[in-house]
Amino acid sequence: MELEFLGTGAGVPSKGRNLSSLALKLLNERNEIWLFDVGEGTQQQILSTNIRPRKITKIFITHLHGDHLFGLPGLLSSRSFQGGDTPLDLYGPPGIKQYVQTSIALSDSHLGYQIRYHELKDGGIVFEDKTFKISCQQVDHRILCYGYRIEEKPHPGELLMDLLADYHLPNGPILGQLKRGEQVKLADGRVLNGFDFLGPSQSGRIVTIIGDTRYTDASVQLARNADVLVHESTLAGSEKKMAHRHYHSTSAQAAQIAKKAHVQKLLLNHISARYVGHKFYELLNDARKIFPNTYVVKDFDQFEIKLNQQGDDSQ
Amino acid sequence: MELEFLGTGAGVPSKGRNLSSLALKLLNERNEIWLFDVGEGTQQQILSTNIRPRKITKIFITHLHGDHLFGLPGLLSSRSFQGGDTPLDLYGPPGIKQYVQTSIALSDSHLGYQIRYHELKDGGIVFEDKTFKISCQQVDHRILCYGYRIEEKPHPGELLMDLLADYHLPNGPILGQLKRGEQVKLADGRVLNGFDFLGPSQSGRIVTIIGDTRYTDASVQLARNADVLVHESTLAGSEKKMAHRHYHSTSAQAAQIAKKAHVQKLLLNHISARYVGHKFYELLNDARKIFPNTYVVKDFDQFEIKLNQQGDDSQ
Repeated sequence: MELEFLGTGAGVPSKGRNLSSLALKLLNERNEIWLFDVGEGTQQQILSTNIRPRKITKIFITHLHGDHLFGLPGLLSSRSFQGGDTPLDLYGPPGIKQYVQTSIALSDSHLGYQIRYHELKDGGIVFEDKTFKISCQQVDHRILCYGYRIEEKPHPGELLMDLLADYHLPNGPILGQLKRGEQVKLADGRVLNGFDFLGPSQSGRIVTIIGDTRYTDASVQLARNADVLVHESTLAGSEKKMAHRHYHSTSAQAAQIAKKAHVQKLLLNHISARYVGHKFYELLNDARKIFPNTYVVKDFDQFEIKLNQQGDDSQ
Repeated sequence: MELEFLGTGAGVPSKGRNLSSLALKLLNERNEIWLFDVGEGTQQQILSTNIRPRKITKIFITHLHGDHLFGLPGLLSSRSFQGGDTPLDLYGPPGIKQYVQTSIALSDSHLGYQIRYHELKDGGIVFEDKTFKISCQQVDHRILCYGYRIEEKPHPGELLMDLLADYHLPNGPILGQLKRGEQVKLADGRVLNGFDFLGPSQSGRIVTIIGDTRYTDASVQLARNADVLVHESTLAGSEKKMAHRHYHSTSAQAAQIAKKAHVQKLLLNHISARYVGHKFYELLNDARKIFPNTYVVKDFDQFEIKLNQQGDDSQ
């Protein structure tokens, strides 16, 4: 499980930062990639990564502002051109369907796969299966904007083969039953309880990705105990009033969210073009005073999210 | 008058070539820039040039395929963000208005200037004033696609002050009248005819920009006697059948157009991603056998178009 930042700027692109897009790479877990926001130029950014567009199976849009959205029709088209033929789930605020369908129809684009639209009118669970649960909640932006919480379900413990050695069990269904924690009756009448032969289970990882927002308690709820919180940080603390006026956050506010929610790591994203070069330290220093394990991301940064991560820097 | 290529690829972006966009820079002539097609990522390409978006006063779209279109909403938004407040004229096939208005409305974008839409249902003159005339004509693509012909009007000759020296004329309106070729009656009764005091006039420049198309006689008409013809050249001559099937041209076909139309210079544009590195020579060599003064353009190439250009290479 890795995060790869495809665009980390705010509002308009700059030479150093493209517009918002973030890939959650679940290649080992699901052989899938999930994308969060698709600013203009995302498909070009992908050319500099090892991401294959056809592995993108879900796209989540936080809100419909152009710097988070305008790369979507191009990416959808290229996914088809490059052989993507499996359905794609698209989640976002109401209007996303009309935007995509209008762009695709007027440009005479022909997609070789189905788009399943999920227009989100309210917060709640948007996806759940055996290994992952994704929920969203409205944050505080000028237009309807969601934060997303991605929860991996617990990993069951490993089957401890050393403890089973004396039973001389054959490979096959019995081992599978034990691994699932089931009770098994052997040919000689003995009964084994799977749970007695399982190592400790590991809790799943939690990643929270917050779109554009002012400081809001909804972010704390979305981020509670997350391994990684990605939070917008358009401006530094000295621009708190301007941040409020434009429905954005300062890095210090993002750090307060991280602290309150007891996350392991904070990644500051959606950085105004004014913080060029070393100026990003203004954002970083403000935040680290409140939440030390903070990083300001830049385009193409990758972060591995390990099981049972203890706040280490996995950059 | 200069051409600057912002994107020279076909269909999907590659690392070397972005999607279609071409700037005609008329800074000395009008202090304006006109854009032809706006593929996704055009606003990012502009960051690597000295083009200021607010100087873009006219945008011409050849056709509505995504690789020529999907950068438009982002560029329009950035033009506003960067202080553009003068009206912008947008020309293109029917549907362009719905595409822009849907994108702008759903993304809650607020433009600080007026867009004047010109949906072109047929070929003909699309703009004319004292110094320029622009016309278009349908070419042969899968969907309605236009080629554009930009004609500069003749430059009147200079007023030959040496010949006027004996008349001791004051600065002011009389000189203006003579410069415009008018007849002037002096205070002493003598009559001067402006045309007797004017140097030779210079013909204006002609630039022809052809969108995606098969070989078609319409291109010859659009390009007749042009100083520069920009023509698509998606594939090499060995792929003539594939080019036909996809409604595109080979470089040899573009060269045939250039030769028939007696243009001065041919710029091959819209190059398939398969021609990486030195492979573009395949396109170039095919074309030069037919029309020697041919160049294969790449992103950020600039070509100055001089008055009375005699087919020299102004690269």
